[in-house]
Amino acid sequence: MAVYTEVADDALITFAAQYDIGEVISCKGIAEGVENSNYMLRTARAAYILTLYEKRVSRADLPFFLGLMDHLASRGIACPTPVHGRDGAALRELCGRPAAIVTFLEGMWPRRIQPHHCARLGEALARLHQAGAGYPARRPNGLSVDAWHRLHAETQERAHEVRPGLADEIAAELGVIGRSWPNGLPAGVIHADLFPDNVFFRGEALSGLIDFYFACNDLLAYDIAICLNAWCFESDGSFNVTKARLMLSAYGKVRPIGAEEFAALPILARGACVRFLLTRLFDWLNHPPGAMVKPKDPLEYLAKLRFHQTARGPGAYGLG
Amino acid sequence: MAVYTEVADDALITFAAQYDIGEVISCKGIAEGVENSNYMLRTARAAYILTLYEKRVSRADLPFFLGLMDHLASRGIACPTPVHGRDGAALRELCGRPAAIVTFLEGMWPRRIQPHHCARLGEALARLHQAGAGYPARRPNGLSVDAWHRLHAETQERAHEVRPGLADEIAAELGVIGRSWPNGLPAGVIHADLFPDNVFFRGEALSGLIDFYFACNDLLAYDIAICLNAWCFESDGSFNVTKARLMLSAYGKVRPIGAEEFAALPILARGACVRFLLTRLFDWLNHPPGAMVKPKDPLEYLAKLRFHQTARGPGAYGLG
Repeated sequence: MAVYTEVADDALITFAAQYDIGEVISCKGIAEGVENSNYMLRTARAAYILTLYEKRVSRADLPFFLGLMDHLASRGIACPTPVHGRDGAALRELCGRPAAIVTFLEGMWPRRIQPHHCARLGEALARLHQAGAGYPARRPNGLSVDAWHRLHAETQERAHEVRPGLADEIAAELGVIGRSWPNGLPAGVIHADLFPDNVFFRGEALSGLIDFYFACNDLLAYDIAICLNAWCFESDGSFNVTKARLMLSAYGKVRPIGAEEFAALPILARGACVRFLLTRLFDWLNHPPGAMVKPKDPLEYLAKLRFHQTARGPGAYGLG
Repeated sequence: MAVYTEVADDALITFAAQYDIGEVISCKGIAEGVENSNYMLRTARAAYILTLYEKRVSRADLPFFLGLMDHLASRGIACPTPVHGRDGAALRELCGRPAAIVTFLEGMWPRRIQPHHCARLGEALARLHQAGAGYPARRPNGLSVDAWHRLHAETQERAHEVRPGLADEIAAELGVIGRSWPNGLPAGVIHADLFPDNVFFRGEALSGLIDFYFACNDLLAYDIAICLNAWCFESDGSFNVTKARLMLSAYGKVRPIGAEEFAALPILARGACVRFLLTRLFDWLNHPPGAMVKPKDPLEYLAKLRFHQTARGPGAYGLG
């Protein structure tokens, strides 16, 4: 939960007057999200989300993210759409932070993942990958293989505080990934963080995707691997083959998954585990005492990694 | 900022179906309030606040609070109104916590207090006191003089960690209060916690009062004293006589303040300082490391106390 920057009512009213959104009637900090400060903004006309970008988001990347949301929304993807001010700009400043207003997306994220959620997610992910195709801007994935080596170097001395032998296990895995990471697979714009709290539903219908602040250009199948990890494991650590099969087949009906992409899923899923294991480990070792945000458990991703290490091929994910 | 209890989407939908409020389309935790978990709930029909009462609020007191909001709203006070379910009940249970839905109140609380805010607050406080008159339920003030002695006993050994000599200073003040606390002044239902973040404005108009979870029966002038402390000191610790005069005169135009009440303002304000000094001191000494809520500074109220100790009479508050 997070509101790092407190927005004063008078500063907000001056800010909002730069947009054609009507009189501000309420603005409440939202206790969700860990990277930025988010406010639910209500005007006489509609509801919006006001985001103040905190220091973990690079200012230089914001035009990529906001432009991508515009691009996707114009291609029928249900996602927050940046509101442009009277001067045409979507990105400006508030309380010394870069800030933007986006449209409010209805729906709730599922706390208890059901198989039908995974099917809808697979379909939406494939549509997202298709819709991203024509987006002209580019942003390399800043949290891919090279970054994992850097994060490993920055955490290896203290990783044993979380679990004895953890640094060695990560080093060995980085070796495997270095030898086996695929190239030449279909690439494009990926979300790169499509966890359940970024996917909204109304009833059984998926109503939209949010939080594009890790979006980048990378292998499309890597985005699938991230979702397999985030959606198809049960809380007891077991892998739910039914959910995985539904996700992949729903994805494939929109954008067929190639044979090489299928074959690469185990190594991509291992990489996706290493990515979240390392960023969580870094946050775990470096979060200030008394921080408002409780760091997530890195070891959840170690357990998932070990599952994928035993997978002999796509069959492990329920595919024949 | 606070959301202590995470509400699952499916549990919420079942819960909301007990009310005639329409389909739930969104529910987001609000990063405000320190006692309870609050969610902004949107349905196809309107916006509401869903509150889950956490352990600091006594379950037995909830009917008093919810009934009071009903009573005040029916007498024209702009405040959240409990939504009654199809069975007539406003109070039920969600995720193992007592829970209620109240109407959503428009407006924003003022971060930078202007004199005009104080005038509107004085008027609203007087109207609140008048409207509370006919409320039949009673709730003694659980944070009045007796409780201060208990809180002093519970904090005196470690108060020096916050400031050397603090326990002695509090003990001396409790002695003065014991000899001089007024009785026989007009009493009734008071809000008892009407800080700026509980008072909403739209433009210069006061749009409503929230958070009645400290409301109780006590001296009406004690509520005025709490507001003098909360609204009329500047951040540098100085007392703003203009704000105090505006607050008191606006109050007096609605409910005339008696001569004994005026005369008692310095001691009531001292008591109000001791109340917040002690509860903040207790929280400061007892908050768990890593708690989500940053405890408020007790010494802010020591400085205010010292101002009131030098006040010879109501003249110190800008009254002739």
